[in-house]
Amino acid sequence: MNIESYFKISYGLYIVTTQSGNTKGGYIANTLFQVTANPPQFAISCNKDNYTAGLIKQSGVFAFSVLSEKANSSLIGNFGYKSGRDFDKFAGVNYITGKLGVPIVTDSSVAWFECKVTQSYEVDTHIIFIGEVVDNGMIEEKGKSLTYNYYREVLKGYSPKNAPTYIDKGEIEAITKTVKQQAEVWQCQLCHYEYEVAKGDPISGIAPGTSFLDIPDDWVCPICGADKSMFEKE
Amino acid sequence: MNIESYFKISYGLYIVTTQSGNTKGGYIANTLFQVTANPPQFAISCNKDNYTAGLIKQSGVFAFSVLSEKANSSLIGNFGYKSGRDFDKFAGVNYITGKLGVPIVTDSSVAWFECKVTQSYEVDTHIIFIGEVVDNGMIEEKGKSLTYNYYREVLKGYSPKNAPTYIDKGEIEAITKTVKQQAEVWQCQLCHYEYEVAKGDPISGIAPGTSFLDIPDDWVCPICGADKSMFEKE
Repeated sequence: MNIESYFKISYGLYIVTTQSGNTKGGYIANTLFQVTANPPQFAISCNKDNYTAGLIKQSGVFAFSVLSEKANSSLIGNFGYKSGRDFDKFAGVNYITGKLGVPIVTDSSVAWFECKVTQSYEVDTHIIFIGEVVDNGMIEEKGKSLTYNYYREVLKGYSPKNAPTYIDKGEIEAITKTVKQQAEVWQCQLCHYEYEVAKGDPISGIAPGTSFLDIPDDWVCPICGADKSMFEKE
Repeated sequence: MNIESYFKISYGLYIVTTQSGNTKGGYIANTLFQVTANPPQFAISCNKDNYTAGLIKQSGVFAFSVLSEKANSSLIGNFGYKSGRDFDKFAGVNYITGKLGVPIVTDSSVAWFECKVTQSYEVDTHIIFIGEVVDNGMIEEKGKSLTYNYYREVLKGYSPKNAPTYIDKGEIEAITKTVKQQAEVWQCQLCHYEYEVAKGDPISGIAPGTSFLDIPDDWVCPICGADKSMFEKE
């Protein structure tokens, strides 16, 4: 298998949400596409183990917000690397409630769609939900959509374990031909984000050249929100 | 329905191909994503009317090539706007034959995947084929993948009628808020590509400022390959 070929597939990044009873669920998805034009229907591929998958099964509705290129990384971290089973992903997040009662995240997003599930199919580890668009809207007309490519290349993010596009980190490293710089690198053990001393973390205001130990203790991983203790020196 | 929101969804562009008996088929797709990581499986959404859809049903195999940002527009035109029923899309195109006997286009592509259909589902006008990856390869490791966004914004292309993401051109124009330049524009009646005199068609060597009537008679639409007679002044 040529793993690098997989990185040539283009994806956007989305927050898929639902609500069943009083329980809200949401996760970060990259596998989402339009299936039919008339009626407009979208397909999403969701891991069966995902807390949100179970909630969508119960509610029969979902929404998705199209993330902005300027998306807040901690929002991606909360929705992508934590589980709704033990963490309130919606705390402190701006959202509206759609016609179908779905919480639709408006933070860090350029557009949104609310859908009613018309069909679903189990494919091994995942469920494909097909949803017909009931309502949609624009949040930031001139905003650029975040792509998975941008997320990987600029934000240095990876797919979480339940994603259809997950590839074992060891495999990625084995095939990464980039010559490692001599510079010091610390890696988040949760999401594999790499803090490079030479680059710092400008998004969080950490200047290039700042040694890891000199970063304030309340700094968190810009991708998944893990705290400093989750980092190991490479 | 907010149509512009639909343009915020990110897609790549692919040539999906198959072969049934001696008959080859292929079309341009943007709706393609990975469904499961283990085993690696991809989903494609294909219009039932597509010649290729019928062939994939018969053969149970398909491949897809990931188009390069430097893709030859006429290749996109041939595979996207003509039908294999009455046109040999593979004439003059470089391809290899995969393990499953599928012709895999290598022109204008950065990577490819050959898949065996494991499941298929009918969703109104379209069929979703799920295919497990049997083989794949890299063509141009440093090549950038063509995105639908780039195709629309830089190459000025639209989705053809059978695409899941097709939107009536009248609707697109009605919502396009761009102030029309006073400059002369000629539009291809087949694919809606617009020849702007002010910009010319640098890809085909037509200098900016060249009036439409002064373009050589053998010039063809850079998107769909239609000849000059298919153009009308806007």
